[in-house]
Amino acid sequence: MNLLLLEKKDYIGPGRVQVSGRRFEHIKKVLKAETGTRLSCGLINDRLGKARVIDLNHNCLEMEVTLESDPPDPLPLTLILALPRPKMLKRILESVVSLGVKEIYLINSWRVEKSFWKSPVLDKENLEKYFRLGLEQGKDTIMPRIYQKRFFSKFVKEELPIIGKGSLCITAHPKTSNICPNSVNKKTTLAIGPEGGFIDLEVKTLEEAGFETFSIGERILKVETATTYLISRLFT
Amino acid sequence: MNLLLLEKKDYIGPGRVQVSGRRFEHIKKVLKAETGTRLSCGLINDRLGKARVIDLNHNCLEMEVTLESDPPDPLPLTLILALPRPKMLKRILESVVSLGVKEIYLINSWRVEKSFWKSPVLDKENLEKYFRLGLEQGKDTIMPRIYQKRFFSKFVKEELPIIGKGSLCITAHPKTSNICPNSVNKKTTLAIGPEGGFIDLEVKTLEEAGFETFSIGERILKVETATTYLISRLFT
Repeated sequence: MNLLLLEKKDYIGPGRVQVSGRRFEHIKKVLKAETGTRLSCGLINDRLGKARVIDLNHNCLEMEVTLESDPPDPLPLTLILALPRPKMLKRILESVVSLGVKEIYLINSWRVEKSFWKSPVLDKENLEKYFRLGLEQGKDTIMPRIYQKRFFSKFVKEELPIIGKGSLCITAHPKTSNICPNSVNKKTTLAIGPEGGFIDLEVKTLEEAGFETFSIGERILKVETATTYLISRLFT
Repeated sequence: MNLLLLEKKDYIGPGRVQVSGRRFEHIKKVLKAETGTRLSCGLINDRLGKARVIDLNHNCLEMEVTLESDPPDPLPLTLILALPRPKMLKRILESVVSLGVKEIYLINSWRVEKSFWKSPVLDKENLEKYFRLGLEQGKDTIMPRIYQKRFFSKFVKEELPIIGKGSLCITAHPKTSNICPNSVNKKTTLAIGPEGGFIDLEVKTLEEAGFETFSIGERILKVETATTYLISRLFT
């Protein structure tokens, strides 16, 4: 936890918050805070600042909070991700959120196992938990938005052209010798397939929706590695 | 498994191999190979090629193998990694090996938990297993080398200056506003700290050994994310 993420309901008065539960346990046991300890904090969807512990008991702590600076810039990236295996999804979400991604579409694809869509990882409260962990990690306050799209063809043909409008549209796909550009640093919509990749028909459907197909060379990466690798490559 | 990784001992005659165990199970159950199926293959520390299934029974398969091309270029990177939590180490090793890293030093640091050094993950046969998975993922055959260094100060003062000689030497550390260069594309030695970072004295010791300290900006990444992020940033 590089940042204590606060919610409006933590406030018990102007500039004063009370924190319990997971965050309290972490601050007490891992960060070993005492009265007077100062921590970086931020209010969800608001500014960053400093919190100073003014009271600490066995199940909660009170802090004085000043918010004084803006959160880091979001990445101008919309991530379109074929639904990964649930355990991997958790890690990918935390990691892309720590990198500043704010728009995420989880989509179906031929090689996505049907059972993945039934995973509790996709429940609203769980997704929000991974987002919080990602924001705490990346010292950010702005909650990402996530959408679940279970019909590949309908989504890519009808919604994706609107989502990608005015942005560089890229499909990451190992089976091409077109090498993905670097340091693009502009509005980008990036589609990443499942383990094993999108099938040819899906790549074609994405191309028809305006997506150019690129690889990163001879090597093939796991979705988890590829996601971070491509974000770093596109935004430097 | 994007590549069937062969060993010399798999050969039962010229251009002919027999494969059993984990690789056999994967080829049969996941890749659903039959007689005639062609697979990408490579011989450890040797060339890449094609394998064609010529016989398949209930516990092994025989294949005809032709080796015809070189493995992808290794990354000109030596990775110095404060020993991560064992579960994370497995993933980091697989992922950096799939990216082409060939020289890895696992080192101690103030914030590395002592118990991590006792993990079976560090056993020779386990490390080799993660390397194989990384090579199979990245379609590569060249086994990386890994070294375990349990004395930070001795290692950094005595060995690291020799290891880093003639290369760009970088410590990745969140507490600096010097931003890490990109597209360096030359011989680099990169030191990455544990969760929570190197302590100030360690950063200073690394600086005295010729390592410049850089961050990636305001955001702080998990070691796992940071490793891939930095490799992508340095080598594009």
